[in-house]
Amino acid sequence: MAKKKLHNDPTEYVSEMLEGFAAANPSHVRRVDETDIVVRADAPVKGKVGVVTGGGSGHEPMHAGYVGKGMLDGAAAGAVFTSPSATDMQELIEVCDGGAGVLAVVKNYEGDIMNFQTASDLAADTEYEQVIVDDDISVSEAEDRTGRRGVAGTVFVHKIAGAKAAQGASLSEVAATAEKAIDNIASMGVALSSCITPEKGEPTVDLSADEIELGIGIHGEPGVERTEHQSADDITERITTDVVKDLDLAMGDEVVAMVNGLGATTQSELYIVARELNRILDGKSIAVHDIWVGEYCTSLDMAGCSISLLRLDDELRELLNYPVETPAVTIAEP
Amino acid sequence: MAKKKLHNDPTEYVSEMLEGFAAANPSHVRRVDETDIVVRADAPVKGKVGVVTGGGSGHEPMHAGYVGKGMLDGAAAGAVFTSPSATDMQELIEVCDGGAGVLAVVKNYEGDIMNFQTASDLAADTEYEQVIVDDDISVSEAEDRTGRRGVAGTVFVHKIAGAKAAQGASLSEVAATAEKAIDNIASMGVALSSCITPEKGEPTVDLSADEIELGIGIHGEPGVERTEHQSADDITERITTDVVKDLDLAMGDEVVAMVNGLGATTQSELYIVARELNRILDGKSIAVHDIWVGEYCTSLDMAGCSISLLRLDDELRELLNYPVETPAVTIAEP
Repeated sequence: MAKKKLHNDPTEYVSEMLEGFAAANPSHVRRVDETDIVVRADAPVKGKVGVVTGGGSGHEPMHAGYVGKGMLDGAAAGAVFTSPSATDMQELIEVCDGGAGVLAVVKNYEGDIMNFQTASDLAADTEYEQVIVDDDISVSEAEDRTGRRGVAGTVFVHKIAGAKAAQGASLSEVAATAEKAIDNIASMGVALSSCITPEKGEPTVDLSADEIELGIGIHGEPGVERTEHQSADDITERITTDVVKDLDLAMGDEVVAMVNGLGATTQSELYIVARELNRILDGKSIAVHDIWVGEYCTSLDMAGCSISLLRLDDELRELLNYPVETPAVTIAEP
Repeated sequence: MAKKKLHNDPTEYVSEMLEGFAAANPSHVRRVDETDIVVRADAPVKGKVGVVTGGGSGHEPMHAGYVGKGMLDGAAAGAVFTSPSATDMQELIEVCDGGAGVLAVVKNYEGDIMNFQTASDLAADTEYEQVIVDDDISVSEAEDRTGRRGVAGTVFVHKIAGAKAAQGASLSEVAATAEKAIDNIASMGVALSSCITPEKGEPTVDLSADEIELGIGIHGEPGVERTEHQSADDITERITTDVVKDLDLAMGDEVVAMVNGLGATTQSELYIVARELNRILDGKSIAVHDIWVGEYCTSLDMAGCSISLLRLDDELRELLNYPVETPAVTIAEP
């Protein structure tokens, strides 16, 4: 059954969405003319490392929602579930270069990596580094992360790298701290229903009324297990156990958690998951510094959620709490 | 077809949700022991007018998401789509009374009004006033507002009243400013699919694959027109025209707009609606101070959105921009 959506010509989906986004957030962002690039209203920030990202659309508020003071300097949006072009990424890098270089936060997808690599070659006058986020534990063991995708945990990397840059760190320092964050993040998701892309108008994945898929990717990539639907507590326990194991978390560790809605799941359900997650971590004597609950990295209108954990140390905790003002995340000065 | 949800025992839905909500937001809120009442972590705030609200659950982040500095002092949650009890509301009023009285922001539903009235009688030691929000223009003309329901525009009333109270205004002043806001708010929604309540597990409203319902209530109450699905631009134009007409907006007026997701609709679609809304208002030379885009008052997992407009004057603009820190809305100091 085709699902009704609020859109016009599906081929204009990304462009119209970005036009509305820019109109709603003029104090935070501006759209670079005739592109699908969104940058800070005051970009480039002179003397500050620029932190940028990019990727396919369909994961809103990722990526443009994280553009603003204390987080990203800019983001390039591709078509739905499609990498932005290398020339857009090049323009992104150049527009966000305030003279201290640019760090790109890249999710571990072949197209994104290839196009950012080409873009950085084209933007030859900009000092450039990149980090690759591979937080999805579903598809391989902790020892071999080759096939691991970048998912919702990437938002923590945006937050940490953005704060480090805002504090005046150098390009290599921002990159090193981002790498440290990546090494301490793990995520896993569950789908209760498929997403439906605007152009196709039909489910991407065939899930029956009683089935769920654990470990599904944010574009509907196959997960680790398809199973009968379970209670929120059982699902939360399964995912949390795997994530805790992957990070080798132990009594006395401290984490920030994220319960991320994949698009069509209500906030109330996410809080029911957060409740059980908090209980499980508490039972293991793992300190929960904070729980982010909401839509951070969606898969269009997929129902389901993902859980991400980031193990904190003093530096990461301070950067996580650092004030930020973006359309999707605001943390006021204490 | 029963829809899969992330929950456990449906009768524990609200309680578990609030437990997760409180665990995720300890710096903003606390849950009053053994109740479904959420109040500011530091309630009561001595010498400040307490601003409270309450209503059925299923509209998250309304109501508890707006509890925090600069907005609500507390909120009582009923079962899904059911008024909280008068005794819970009484406790809410008493806990939030810092000595300057309490204003309740009540949506225009019989149960909410009756229970708040009883509660205020029971809380006899608290100076009490209430305002009734009736922003849904779907069910009656501007001249006869009797049957008008309170919907997403209520969030603007929370914001305005909360800021006025934070500035130190008296109970009668906060009530008068809230009334002024209410007189200048109009809202209208559209459903693309029905919501499904946790206990029933089946659609509340029977909408076919090609149908949408204009003016539907946030509990699935009948709207003004059931029609074939249309483009986002056509839907936006229809709703905006009706809302603008109801408020009698004219060239030179200034508004803040809200594009509110009803639960299952993606942020990208809401931005596509925001784009057209902004264009229409711009074409009428109505100044758009800001557009709030996101989920503010949902109807569980209903697909669709509502548009609210609030006509601003100098006082309302200042109060709208006043800093606020709640789980759902944060505005940093300028």
